[in-house]
Amino acid sequence: MAKIQDAISELEHTFGDKLSQTQSIRDLHGQNETYFAAMPPDAVFFPETSEDVAAAVKICAKHGCPIVPWGVGTSLEGHALAVKGGVTFSFQNMASVIEILPQDLSVRVQPGVTREVLNQELRATGLFFPIDPGANATIGGMAATRASGTTAVRYGTMRENILAMTVVMADGCIIKTGTRAKKSSAGYDLNHLLIGSEGTLGIITELTLKLHGQPEAIGAAICAFPSVERAVNTTIQCIQMGIPVARMELVDAISMKCINAYSKTDYPEEPHLFMEFHGTKASVTEQSQMVETIAQELGGNGFQWTTKPEERTQLWSARHTAYWAIKAHWPERQGMSTDVCVPISQLAEAIAAAQKDVAAHGLPGPIVGHVGDGNYHVLLLSDPNQPSELQVAKDIAARMAEHALQLGGTITGEHGIGMGKMALLESEYGPSVQTMSAIKRALDPQNILNPGKIIRIN
Amino acid sequence: MAKIQDAISELEHTFGDKLSQTQSIRDLHGQNETYFAAMPPDAVFFPETSEDVAAAVKICAKHGCPIVPWGVGTSLEGHALAVKGGVTFSFQNMASVIEILPQDLSVRVQPGVTREVLNQELRATGLFFPIDPGANATIGGMAATRASGTTAVRYGTMRENILAMTVVMADGCIIKTGTRAKKSSAGYDLNHLLIGSEGTLGIITELTLKLHGQPEAIGAAICAFPSVERAVNTTIQCIQMGIPVARMELVDAISMKCINAYSKTDYPEEPHLFMEFHGTKASVTEQSQMVETIAQELGGNGFQWTTKPEERTQLWSARHTAYWAIKAHWPERQGMSTDVCVPISQLAEAIAAAQKDVAAHGLPGPIVGHVGDGNYHVLLLSDPNQPSELQVAKDIAARMAEHALQLGGTITGEHGIGMGKMALLESEYGPSVQTMSAIKRALDPQNILNPGKIIRIN
Repeated sequence: MAKIQDAISELEHTFGDKLSQTQSIRDLHGQNETYFAAMPPDAVFFPETSEDVAAAVKICAKHGCPIVPWGVGTSLEGHALAVKGGVTFSFQNMASVIEILPQDLSVRVQPGVTREVLNQELRATGLFFPIDPGANATIGGMAATRASGTTAVRYGTMRENILAMTVVMADGCIIKTGTRAKKSSAGYDLNHLLIGSEGTLGIITELTLKLHGQPEAIGAAICAFPSVERAVNTTIQCIQMGIPVARMELVDAISMKCINAYSKTDYPEEPHLFMEFHGTKASVTEQSQMVETIAQELGGNGFQWTTKPEERTQLWSARHTAYWAIKAHWPERQGMSTDVCVPISQLAEAIAAAQKDVAAHGLPGPIVGHVGDGNYHVLLLSDPNQPSELQVAKDIAARMAEHALQLGGTITGEHGIGMGKMALLESEYGPSVQTMSAIKRALDPQNILNPGKIIRIN
Repeated sequence: MAKIQDAISELEHTFGDKLSQTQSIRDLHGQNETYFAAMPPDAVFFPETSEDVAAAVKICAKHGCPIVPWGVGTSLEGHALAVKGGVTFSFQNMASVIEILPQDLSVRVQPGVTREVLNQELRATGLFFPIDPGANATIGGMAATRASGTTAVRYGTMRENILAMTVVMADGCIIKTGTRAKKSSAGYDLNHLLIGSEGTLGIITELTLKLHGQPEAIGAAICAFPSVERAVNTTIQCIQMGIPVARMELVDAISMKCINAYSKTDYPEEPHLFMEFHGTKASVTEQSQMVETIAQELGGNGFQWTTKPEERTQLWSARHTAYWAIKAHWPERQGMSTDVCVPISQLAEAIAAAQKDVAAHGLPGPIVGHVGDGNYHVLLLSDPNQPSELQVAKDIAARMAEHALQLGGTITGEHGIGMGKMALLESEYGPSVQTMSAIKRALDPQNILNPGKIIRIN
C-alpha cells in the first residue's frame, strides 16, 4: 500500500510527534468492544486543532489514504476499525470544553471530550448534558453514531441535542453546520446529515450542544412484573398517556439473576422496570403516582420510589451494573448486542418474538432495553471456541432486525450500522441506499473517509 | 422551450385531465404571498398517488423540464414560483389523512392536507399536531420549508415532528426516509436532509408525523411592558429557567395600535407578551405564576391569565389578528417579512438594533415574534408605487440578517431561503454552500427540481 505509506511519510514530515506508528499505539486503535477481529491502522494521528485535521485530510486525500476517526473506541458495530488500513485520527488531544454558554443553555466542545468529563465541568452551572449511552463515550463519537441511551425518552437523542458542528470534509475543507440559534430554515440540514454519518462523510472537530437545566427534583422507581409483557404494557400505557418519564428501562429476569449474583442483592428474579422522573417536586410525585397506578393495574408488585439521592443511586445500581453482571455471569462468552427499535405499539410483540427465538436456539440472551423509546437490546452470548454459535447469534440478530422492519421499526435504534449491519441497511431502506451512496460519492469521491462502513462503495 | 412543451405533451398523453394548461389555473399557481412578481408555470399537474408523481417526474426528467411542487402557496420567499417555467405539481388531490395511529402517537398523511384539516380529523383521538406557522399551510409545504411558528418553543419545529416520509427523487425513484420508530441510527439521515430542502432534492408524497396528547389544561396569559426590551428580558429569563411555555409571543406597540383599530379593542398601546401554558392543571398554574413573578420584576403590568376556553380565545385574539390588523392599517403598502433567529441571550440586542434601523429609514416596521425561540419578524411595509422603498426594505432586511449572523444566529428561523435569501445563505454558511451544491448536483444532476431556489446551480 504505497499510497498509505506515502501519506504517512508526508504526515510524519508535517506533524512530527503528532503521528505515531508504534505497534502498541496502533494495536490500541485496532480494538473494538464486540466480536469483530482486531484491525489496527498503519498509523495514528493525534490532531490538536481543526486546522491540523484539515491539513492532514488534505495529505491523505492527495495520496488516497483511508482515514478512520476514533473517540474512545466504545462503539458496538466495528465503526472505528481500520478495515482498509490507513491512518486513525484519535481525538484524545482535542478533548476540551471550549466555552460554556449558560445563558443560551448551550456549550461548545471538542469532539474528544467524554460525556462524564463534560458533565463534571458543567456541574457548577446548574445545567447538564443528558444523553447517556451507558459507556463513557466521547461526544464526537456519540454524534457520529447518533447515540442515545437511557434518557432519550425524555431529552431526545444526539439528533435532537446538537445545534451546530465544525466538520472537515474529504477535500480538507472546513465547514460549519447549524448555528447557535435554536432553529433555522437556512438551506440543507447538513447538521443532521453529518450526525450519524459515522465518519464517512466528514470528520467532526467541534460541536455546539444543547444543555438542559438540572431538574429541581429527581425521583427514581423500580417495580417487578410477573412477565416481560406486563412490564412492556406498562411502558406502552405510560408513553401513550404522555407521562414525561426521564428514563424507562426494562431488565429481564435472567439479567436480574445475574445482577443478584454480581451485586449480592436479593431482588425478585423477575422482569423489572427501572424509572426516573424529572421535574418540580409536585410534578415528580404526580408522575410516579400515575406510573404506579398503571403498573399495579397490570400486575406490577413491590413498586418502590424515592427522591433521596442515595436511595436513588441504590435503586438504579442494578440497572447500571446489568451489562457487567451479565458479562461476569458468562465470562468465557463474547457478547453481540442487538439494537432494534419499533413503534411503541409493537414493542410487546417484538420482544415476545425475540424471546421465543432466543429460547429455541439455546444461547443465553438476556434483555435490557430503553423500552420507553421502543428500543431494546438482546445480548447474545456465544462461545468463541465454537464459531457456529456466533453464526447462530448473527442469524437470531438478523431475524430480529427483519421482524422489526415488518413492524414498522428500524434495525438500529442507537448503535449504528458500522460494519455489522450493512446488509440489513439494504433491507430497511432499499432504493434509499442508492441515494445515500450518491451523497457519499459526491462528498467523498475517493472513498477515503472511514471506508467499509455504512454503505458499500465500489 | 421545446423541452418543456415536449414534457407537457407527454404528460397530457399519459395523464389526461390530471394536467391543466388553462390560463387561470396557471395564473393561480404563479402567485405568492409577498413582493415577488407573479411567475406562472406552463402547466399544472394534479397527481393522485406517489406513483403518479414518480411517473410524471420520469417524463419531466426525460425532457429536462422544471418541476415546482405546490401546497397552497402560503410560503414567504417565493418558493413555489416557476422561475424557469415548467410544470407545477399541485397536491390538492393528495390531501387525505391516510391512517391515524393513536397507539403510536403518530399519523400518516398525504402532503396536500392542511394543518387545520389534520387537527379537525384528529380531534376525537385526544391527540393533536402542534406546529402552527400562522397560515393554514399544507403539511407537505411545511415540511419542505422546515416551518415552525408559535408552538415551536414547546413542541419543536417540523424538523422534530416528522418521523418518516415517502419522497420521489429527480430520477422518478420512490424512496422512504425514516421509519415509524421514535429513533434510529440506520444510515444517513435522509429524512432531515429532505425536510427543509424546499422541493429542490425530492418531492414529498407522504409523511408520518408525531402527534402529541391534547394537554389536560391550557392556560393563556397576556402582559403589557413599558418597553420591548423588558418584554424580551422576561422571555429570556423564562427560557433560561426552563419554564416549558407552549407559546411565548411578542407584539410591539405599533402592532397593538393596529390591533386596537382593527378589532375595536382598547389594549394599552405598549409592547405585549402573549403566552400559553400546557400541562396538568397544577403545572399550568405553577408555570403562569412563575412567569407572572418574572414579568412583574421586570416592570410588566396588567398580567392577566385564564384557563377558560372562551377567555383564552379572547386573550389570544389580538395576537391571531396581528397580521391582518397591520395589513389593514397600511392597505396600500406591500409587506416583506424578515425572519432572523438568534441565540436567546442575544435577542434583546438584535431587536433593539432592528428597531433603530427601521426608525432611521421612515418605513413602517411593526414587530411580532416567536421570542421564546429567539425568532421574530419585522414586517417592512413599502409603497409599491415607490420602488426605492422596496430597496430600502430589502437593505434593512439584509442588515438584520448580517447582524443576526454576527450574534451567532441564522438568516431565517422558519420561512426558508427560496428566491429571497440565496445571497444571504452564502453569508451564513460560506464553504458549506459548496457542500450543499455538491449534494444538489448528485441528487438532481439536471437541476429540474424547483430550480432557482436555495442555491445557484450553473
